Amino acid sequence: MKNSNGVKQSQLANKTLREAPKDEESVNAILLTRAGFIDKLGAGIYSFLPLGLRVLRKIENIIRQEMAAIGGQEILMPAMHPKEYWEKTGRWESLDVMFKLKGMGDKDYGLGSTHEEIVTPVAKKVILSYKDLPMALFQIQTKFRNEARAKSGLLRGREFSMKDLYSFHADQKDLDQYYEQATEAYFKVFTRCGLKTYLTAASGGSFSKYSHEFQVVSPAGEDTIFICSNCENFAINKEIKVENPKCPQCGGMGFEEAKAIEVGNIFKLGTRFSEPFELKFKKEDGQEDLVIMGCYGIGPSRVMGAIVEINNDDKGIIWPESVAPYKVHLLALGDDKKVKKTADELYEKLAEANIEVLYDDRSLPAGAKFAEADLIGIPYRLVISEKTLAKDSVELKKRYKEETELIKIDKIVEMMK
Amino acid sequence: MKNSNGVKQSQLANKTLREAPKDEESVNAILLTRAGFIDKLGAGIYSFLPLGLRVLRKIENIIRQEMAAIGGQEILMPAMHPKEYWEKTGRWESLDVMFKLKGMGDKDYGLGSTHEEIVTPVAKKVILSYKDLPMALFQIQTKFRNEARAKSGLLRGREFSMKDLYSFHADQKDLDQYYEQATEAYFKVFTRCGLKTYLTAASGGSFSKYSHEFQVVSPAGEDTIFICSNCENFAINKEIKVENPKCPQCGGMGFEEAKAIEVGNIFKLGTRFSEPFELKFKKEDGQEDLVIMGCYGIGPSRVMGAIVEINNDDKGIIWPESVAPYKVHLLALGDDKKVKKTADELYEKLAEANIEVLYDDRSLPAGAKFAEADLIGIPYRLVISEKTLAKDSVELKKRYKEETELIKIDKIVEMMK
Repeated sequence: MKNSNGVKQSQLANKTLREAPKDEESVNAILLTRAGFIDKLGAGIYSFLPLGLRVLRKIENIIRQEMAAIGGQEILMPAMHPKEYWEKTGRWESLDVMFKLKGMGDKDYGLGSTHEEIVTPVAKKVILSYKDLPMALFQIQTKFRNEARAKSGLLRGREFSMKDLYSFHADQKDLDQYYEQATEAYFKVFTRCGLKTYLTAASGGSFSKYSHEFQVVSPAGEDTIFICSNCENFAINKEIKVENPKCPQCGGMGFEEAKAIEVGNIFKLGTRFSEPFELKFKKEDGQEDLVIMGCYGIGPSRVMGAIVEINNDDKGIIWPESVAPYKVHLLALGDDKKVKKTADELYEKLAEANIEVLYDDRSLPAGAKFAEADLIGIPYRLVISEKTLAKDSVELKKRYKEETELIKIDKIVEMMK
Repeated sequence: MKNSNGVKQSQLANKTLREAPKDEESVNAILLTRAGFIDKLGAGIYSFLPLGLRVLRKIENIIRQEMAAIGGQEILMPAMHPKEYWEKTGRWESLDVMFKLKGMGDKDYGLGSTHEEIVTPVAKKVILSYKDLPMALFQIQTKFRNEARAKSGLLRGREFSMKDLYSFHADQKDLDQYYEQATEAYFKVFTRCGLKTYLTAASGGSFSKYSHEFQVVSPAGEDTIFICSNCENFAINKEIKVENPKCPQCGGMGFEEAKAIEVGNIFKLGTRFSEPFELKFKKEDGQEDLVIMGCYGIGPSRVMGAIVEINNDDKGIIWPESVAPYKVHLLALGDDKKVKKTADELYEKLAEANIEVLYDDRSLPAGAKFAEADLIGIPYRLVISEKTLAKDSVELKKRYKEETELIKIDKIVEMMK
């Protein structure tokens, strides 16, 4: 049976590894490689295998839904950018992480490390008057960055996935309001992905005084942030921390230092890009004015890496249900025909009820199946053996808490919904 | 209301153009640009705007479904490939369409123009024994090709989308059977996309004597093929045509010459890649043997271009329903409040019933709305005006046949399902 909700492990392109790969240092890369989610092609460059791609797509879809909810319209811009777009803003020379290459006729291209220089001319085609504002365009696209250091697995890639949203406004007040909306949408994305994030004031780079990052506390993080010890609703990136800072949310003066992973960042761009590209709109009074812009990034592959850094134990990964490759891992133990038949039937029933199920139908010792299941980290594990079948039951184990219980077979589908 | 089935044109990132863009020659690029589906960034490099991305995604999903139906497991491989993979097969030097670039430490990378050199090492990780065969892995990924000529819009891009499936087999017979299955799956894909294709014998390149292409007859095509005049079930690409060829399907000797667009191609690779990468499997008898491979490509963006080349008239595009950005185009004419209210309600009802609807809610003259609707080419057009409302009706026009009829408003939702 072809079934998009379920797959039999005997047919899945997946082989787990007992040992950590020799060329990986980071927890996320080690666990994701061992569990068969990703495969390294080069430093900072990974393939996503079937289980890994399912996780990535789930993260992307959560982001997609929340971007649509704040009016984001999805587009797709190219990865290969003719030099002239980047020369307009002076970033052809200044953006040192950009990969550069030559095509036919010695034409220069850059590989997109970000897309402001591309989206602004696109916006010029679809924004003519105040009636077209505000507008928000986003894409989920591959980004390329010539990173000096690429040893953090999915946390810092040379090629990685990025959702970038760009917003366009008639005035600063409208941008400010949208920026708040986007902040809320970002918190929703990360909460749905099982990540607790701190809104962190950071440098605005060349665009504005400040930007905001969404930081996940983790020893694997490359950033150092200071979290307000009183309200915990605000943090400051070390790069902009002054002497004796004061929390703008609660006035608190105590801050706790932590290593953190930046999973999102948002910027008020103002007219930094609308000016060089002359992105203007006609106002109600007939006058022309420059469009005010904001930009908002989340790296879905980095989010995936961060989730693994936060959610694991010595046995393997512990996926939050929202992004797990499958909801249920069904294990049939032993070679008993009745066990096999019952498990086959349960697999079909679960999949028919739209419950995503990975079914370990292979002939392997119980210990090997358990070890692999722990490593892969699917939230609900159902185990059928001669012992459980004698009680017309399966054993249900929740990966995220070491609890097991016996459940009657005819109750399982209803329970897993 | 946020609604993934519907969008109001007043809020859509879309502006149509009356005139053809000066820098385009091909019908597909002209129409898709004028209708606001794509935007050119450089020669052979396009952005997909909201309407265009919807079409591309629909084509991709049709392909995805048919690949899954023949056991394809979706993965995602990188676009940036370290040189050493391509050196293994000697194609670093021989593949002249590959873009090359340098990263940190002067490391050489190629941008993926195809992925045999990448998928074979991936397959080595997941194929160990005969139990793992056959296996089929596919991806939908951006490809880059340093094309000398890039004037055909979506038909020949420097950056374009590609679905590439790779199959792995224990022996030639198994590959041969799968190749037939893949051929059938390809016909299903193209038929679902509204394209009539001819299976065309072509050169096997360096891999095998022959390969097979799926060709769509069109004056825009860059290929010349000869179609059997008798059975029409077989064609030969000019590049391999001998004197007095004979149709292998029916024995016919008459062939008709036609220009055609290649929308898919399939190859038997044999051990061309498993050999250099030592992709072997353990047989039942314990001996090792090389895996036999096949590869199967479809370019979703090129399919989109081909659909437009085939389906248009002097007013614009005529989308087949299966890939249309929306199924229904709802037009409210005039400024009558009751018309507006009825149209608003109908929009909500259609969207709630999961019918994809583009709603032209703008204040524009009827003629302008009709011209844009013709250009955009959505299959079913519903027009509400004071005149139709007086009869509690809307006018239904099918874009693909110039027919209109009056339909009672309370019948519309049921009828459009």
